[in-house]
Amino acid sequence: MITGSTKLYAIVADPIAQVKTPEVLNSYFAKQNMDAVLVPVHVDVNGLAAVFTAFRSMKNLGGVIVTVPHKTVAAQLCDDLGPAGRAIGSVNVIRRMPDGSLLGDTFDGAGFVSGLCRQGHDPKGKRALLVGSGGAAGAIAFSLAQAGVASLTIANRTRAKAQDIVDRVAAVFPQVTLLVGAADPTGHDLVINATSLGMQASDPLPLDVSRLTPGMVVAEIIMKPEQTPLLLAAQDKGCFVHYGKHMLEQQVNLIAQFMLDTD
Amino acid sequence: MITGSTKLYAIVADPIAQVKTPEVLNSYFAKQNMDAVLVPVHVDVNGLAAVFTAFRSMKNLGGVIVTVPHKTVAAQLCDDLGPAGRAIGSVNVIRRMPDGSLLGDTFDGAGFVSGLCRQGHDPKGKRALLVGSGGAAGAIAFSLAQAGVASLTIANRTRAKAQDIVDRVAAVFPQVTLLVGAADPTGHDLVINATSLGMQASDPLPLDVSRLTPGMVVAEIIMKPEQTPLLLAAQDKGCFVHYGKHMLEQQVNLIAQFMLDTD
Repeated sequence: MITGSTKLYAIVADPIAQVKTPEVLNSYFAKQNMDAVLVPVHVDVNGLAAVFTAFRSMKNLGGVIVTVPHKTVAAQLCDDLGPAGRAIGSVNVIRRMPDGSLLGDTFDGAGFVSGLCRQGHDPKGKRALLVGSGGAAGAIAFSLAQAGVASLTIANRTRAKAQDIVDRVAAVFPQVTLLVGAADPTGHDLVINATSLGMQASDPLPLDVSRLTPGMVVAEIIMKPEQTPLLLAAQDKGCFVHYGKHMLEQQVNLIAQFMLDTD
Repeated sequence: MITGSTKLYAIVADPIAQVKTPEVLNSYFAKQNMDAVLVPVHVDVNGLAAVFTAFRSMKNLGGVIVTVPHKTVAAQLCDDLGPAGRAIGSVNVIRRMPDGSLLGDTFDGAGFVSGLCRQGHDPKGKRALLVGSGGAAGAIAFSLAQAGVASLTIANRTRAKAQDIVDRVAAVFPQVTLLVGAADPTGHDLVINATSLGMQASDPLPLDVSRLTPGMVVAEIIMKPEQTPLLLAAQDKGCFVHYGKHMLEQQVNLIAQFMLDTD
């Protein structure tokens, strides 16, 4: 039951209809017996700065979840950033401080790695291929390096964006082999699609599925559809498939802890 | 159940905890089987312009309810106004148009008069005293004149604000006797408190209750507490008391129709 004293939380995205966070967080609030609600806010990149300015003035706003395509721009619009958010230049959650300022950080990477481990795919010592170089990709690269992958290849249409992530992660984890490469699974144990390709039925595949081999772990971060064309192809090739929902499931506690903490 | 495709509505107020609109509108949405949610947004007058700028960029926002103390400033922040909103310079509801522009109007007055009639207190031909000159007071003055009161006295600490309402209403309804006067019930049939005095336990009374006489109708627009010190004193004096909730009850349909109509 929403009343005048209900604490407000939001998720910003464009498009918005596919986001699952309202169901997940509102069910979390209910379980915790919290008088709080999370609502979807559909805003495009041109409107984001205006919406962030307003967030500072909304006194009953507790925090904001940030998703595609806003994670990088949102990091620039925050007043302060946590360690992962600062390293990657990306945020997926914002806490509104008592003075109205916005503190951002990202738990995309921590949530993704935690989800992998829970499904029995600890990335430690593995050779990983990460396709995409958006905000989520950067956070995942950071957390894979932190989790001790043997090597990480980042593939992206715009090479310079992949190189930027390599440079940022190498600055913090110099012991990990980091490469910019092609979207070719050959020689990798773990293959991750961190692009949005697969959300639309008409999207091309994000990587060359003919090079997938049995025993590889193929992971999505897309929530909807749960079964993407990439995962169907991977299943066909005898790979382990890992769904986008696992990242979100593991993130809920991390995000909620960060967003709800007003100390 | 709030999802990514749920249409968003808001109420802006300062303070916010006392507003009843979220319960009322969300129950309306549920009855109409609408995928929509209304949430409280606590913003002070310094932040209102920033929040309105953001509203234009929130593509899934359907509309906004405006209450104390924002009704007058909100009228200046809208892109266009309906007839009552334009006459009074006050809005209590805003429809977000498909192009993002904000169309405001006020149904405070129409809701209040409709509530009075429903309780058997048709103001037609009555001598009314209205205390206060905020946004709601102006709208109520407009609708009392439209409903055919014989006379209307407006009392306000700042006389110029009362005179401003008299001038605006007189321009549209020249046949009604309109006066600026004292907060003295003597000689009136209908006495209305349209100030916020009575919301806080420590507030002084809005008018001289020693001058109330049996048979007068004494009305509040305050929702919480339902029983204000003014109404308790009025009951004591043998007056009919009329609660703030009646205005809201009658407004719900008027507001919803306006806010939800996207034609």
